[in-house]
Amino acid sequence: MHFADPLPLRSGASIRAYDLVYETYGELNADKSNAVLVLHALNASHHVAGKYAGQERSEGWWDNMIGPGKPLDTRRFFVIGINNLGSCFGSTGPMHRNPDTGAVYGASFPVVTVEDWVDAQARLLDRLGIHTLAAVMGGSLGGMQALSWTLQYPQRMRHAVVIASAPNLTAENIAFNEVARRAIVTDPDFQGGNFYGAEGQPQTKPKRGLRIARMIGHITYLSDDVMNEKFGRELRGALLREADPAQDAGRAPGTYRYTTQDVEFQIESYLRHQGDKFAEYFDANTYLLITRALDYFDPAREYGGNLSQALARARARFLLVSFTTDWRFSPKRSRELVKALLDNRREVSYAEIDAPHGHDAFLLDDKRYTAVVRAYFDQIAAGLASAGAAP
Amino acid sequence: MHFADPLPLRSGASIRAYDLVYETYGELNADKSNAVLVLHALNASHHVAGKYAGQERSEGWWDNMIGPGKPLDTRRFFVIGINNLGSCFGSTGPMHRNPDTGAVYGASFPVVTVEDWVDAQARLLDRLGIHTLAAVMGGSLGGMQALSWTLQYPQRMRHAVVIASAPNLTAENIAFNEVARRAIVTDPDFQGGNFYGAEGQPQTKPKRGLRIARMIGHITYLSDDVMNEKFGRELRGALLREADPAQDAGRAPGTYRYTTQDVEFQIESYLRHQGDKFAEYFDANTYLLITRALDYFDPAREYGGNLSQALARARARFLLVSFTTDWRFSPKRSRELVKALLDNRREVSYAEIDAPHGHDAFLLDDKRYTAVVRAYFDQIAAGLASAGAAP
Repeated sequence: MHFADPLPLRSGASIRAYDLVYETYGELNADKSNAVLVLHALNASHHVAGKYAGQERSEGWWDNMIGPGKPLDTRRFFVIGINNLGSCFGSTGPMHRNPDTGAVYGASFPVVTVEDWVDAQARLLDRLGIHTLAAVMGGSLGGMQALSWTLQYPQRMRHAVVIASAPNLTAENIAFNEVARRAIVTDPDFQGGNFYGAEGQPQTKPKRGLRIARMIGHITYLSDDVMNEKFGRELRGALLREADPAQDAGRAPGTYRYTTQDVEFQIESYLRHQGDKFAEYFDANTYLLITRALDYFDPAREYGGNLSQALARARARFLLVSFTTDWRFSPKRSRELVKALLDNRREVSYAEIDAPHGHDAFLLDDKRYTAVVRAYFDQIAAGLASAGAAP
Repeated sequence: MHFADPLPLRSGASIRAYDLVYETYGELNADKSNAVLVLHALNASHHVAGKYAGQERSEGWWDNMIGPGKPLDTRRFFVIGINNLGSCFGSTGPMHRNPDTGAVYGASFPVVTVEDWVDAQARLLDRLGIHTLAAVMGGSLGGMQALSWTLQYPQRMRHAVVIASAPNLTAENIAFNEVARRAIVTDPDFQGGNFYGAEGQPQTKPKRGLRIARMIGHITYLSDDVMNEKFGRELRGALLREADPAQDAGRAPGTYRYTTQDVEFQIESYLRHQGDKFAEYFDANTYLLITRALDYFDPAREYGGNLSQALARARARFLLVSFTTDWRFSPKRSRELVKALLDNRREVSYAEIDAPHGHDAFLLDDKRYTAVVRAYFDQIAAGLASAGAAP
């Protein structure tokens, strides 16, 4: 969807003539009351569910949660996924042309915040003719957007589902983001962020930096426990031998190779693979923009750090979910949100799920987790039905 | 001290004609029973205590713990600090010449393990005429060396003081090491590890990679709590204004600058500064070697993972200390060591110190921590005195 009117940004800059890519699933009902807006985190897009025709491995990033018969059931709800500004998955971003200059944005793409994204999303809903959402929903950075929706447009949703999120980032989280950004910015191929040709195609790609950024991210999305269980201290040699006995010939099983630069442990191989994949498809400037949006989000900031005051504007009913082993967005941070909402006499359901997978748990299948989300949306659906039956 | 005999290494390689730099503090007593060997971790050296003449800021890395009247009192003990092979602080390392080829080692410096270091340290003690140590002592990687001493030379020490250590690294720890190594190895200035001139001086220095490595390390040595307390979400602008009001002129106090590449938060400024300092003085090949020694250490490995069996050889009495907020070498890991030692009916004292500083706590002043170490060494000293008084 194209937008010609400029979008004013929190930084004081504005962005004009931008596109937002979105997908919808299910049918909008007659009174337009069954729409659910699903918001994406760092490494995701508008493609939240389903597969593209003829592309077997194209499942949406929340396909286990959203679809016909799934916890967020697209037979009952009209689900909207929007790709955020600054992303590299279709909406206007650093690889596109600045209409004011005709040149590719690169590093000059304006800094966008969670609040800016929400404003852009609201305009898209306006154009779809949807005033009030049944729910806004997101995990991690997506959860921050859902929370911000309840503060920026308190009248425009009945429910907010905020999963594995936080009222702001801790110093440690900012620190991990900063190391990842430094790895990208100091990669010589980053070239100050202006590494695109005239058509927005990268001429050089700061892959070294992107790999490091992804490896750091990956470690922090998992828990120590799940890494020990999945990889432990297992050597790569063991798997090589399984695949091709000749590969590791002449070495006793389980012996070290004694190398500082080559892969020795399985966990190293896994991380390198994740880094390589990510560096192929992700954009470096997008990484900087999205991690900064995470850093900047802090609704309590303008209230001197008083989160209860900051959330006083919210009118939605809330479901919050956190995961015990998530050390990046820990249950403690979700409990801060719960407390601040209860201080304002908001209606809040909160589930703390005992799952081993760390922050990644919000994307994975866990019976108790999906059951909680399913029950919550069943309840919303029942409310819709009775509202529809009312005169 | 120069060693002409080759040192066989666990990798099957050997190293010959090497030097070990060491320092001693206090006086060796007549029966040579009061020697304490202090072992260093990643970013340290033989210079464990005291200052060099005329160099005000040259305190040893454990100067708060070791010296006259300090917990490890050099008026009673003869303390030895040895710089390990592969280091960049004086002992033979990658920046030195391989006597077999005449060329600077660079990336060809052999992989060294904790066990190899202990063997080299034992040879140095042989040359000093010290058979039995009053104690071996170390924190973190130094603690692994102390533990390995009790297994490789069980008759050569009376006590082992193992602080903030672990029986091996978890997958998460290996993962952090691997990301740091990849940052270094993929820095174009690393040049495969052969970046030295003929005299061992770096011609190029992979500073980008070293900075990233240090920033990652720094985050993981601290706790989330102490980072929040020390930096929180404080902006750099606030401090700039304090130092020079003109610097941050025209911006309302506490407002964001909205930047993806420049420093916004204090924590970023702190980490960049730490990275810059480290990149100046540390060697990239040393970083790879030392982190690999950490990865490889795993005495239970040859016992099928059975730590109790692995520690059966130990004869020393033990003091173990861990810190509640240390998530890199957590109390849980120290408790594994305690249990395995108790399984072998070894005498073990164990203190779990409630300190906020994460892994770094082992280098910092904490009354309860230093009191425990002081009491333990007082007890050892009393044992020495009574042994001296015996016929």
